[in-house]
Amino acid sequence: MAEPVSTAPQLRLRILFDHAAMMGPGKAMLLQHIGQTGSISAAGRAMSMSYKRAWMLVEEMNAMFRDPLVTSARGGQGGGGAHLTEAGQAVLGLYQRIEMLAATAAAADIALLQLMLRDMSDKK
Amino acid sequence: MAEPVSTAPQLRLRILFDHAAMMGPGKAMLLQHIGQTGSISAAGRAMSMSYKRAWMLVEEMNAMFRDPLVTSARGGQGGGGAHLTEAGQAVLGLYQRIEMLAATAAAADIALLQLMLRDMSDKK
Repeated sequence: MAEPVSTAPQLRLRILFDHAAMMGPGKAMLLQHIGQTGSISAAGRAMSMSYKRAWMLVEEMNAMFRDPLVTSARGGQGGGGAHLTEAGQAVLGLYQRIEMLAATAAAADIALLQLMLRDMSDKK
Repeated sequence: MAEPVSTAPQLRLRILFDHAAMMGPGKAMLLQHIGQTGSISAAGRAMSMSYKRAWMLVEEMNAMFRDPLVTSARGGQGGGGAHLTEAGQAVLGLYQRIEMLAATAAAADIALLQLMLRDMSDKK
């Protein structure tokens, strides 16, 4: 009786800049979790991402932008802790606005694409 | 003297539907090349993609949409040949319009992000 409700399509954006610099959904979500948890390792865990990969992405973002996006004290008393800088908050905010504007602008055509999909809900 | 000219950022879109169905830049470009070359293998070659992967993506798209996007005669006299169906042309056109609308809507914020990047052009 309960038909599985079709969820809205998700739009994932990657922005490719010069010199192989890239900003995408993984980095944006990592920034968001760092802002929420105050910790790079906790942010990584929330995304099922290894500590090593979370650190690598943070270092990549810090090298890519003029100002660092995340400051952190690795280890030490109190176990480190990390937070978004003003630049980090600005980059996250811009990325989220880009996502929202793109999804809004494309919504009608994405709905048309969705209408062309095969109906999978009746598959055994 | 010749400073490397900074190229415009590129926006790459992936649309995630229910049931793990996905439409992204690789599939769209493959459709475009099949339309241009009339051949799945030639389209794959133009993208440095293996014949096997090109076929797999075509089969994935044909299974994902209600109507097939690509029809083909594998092998045989004349070496097969493939072409986009009406549905294939419609999906490609919608995807390209989604790309264009998203890039236009997000252009100002992408430019702001770009302004925050470190200037890499003076790196040795």
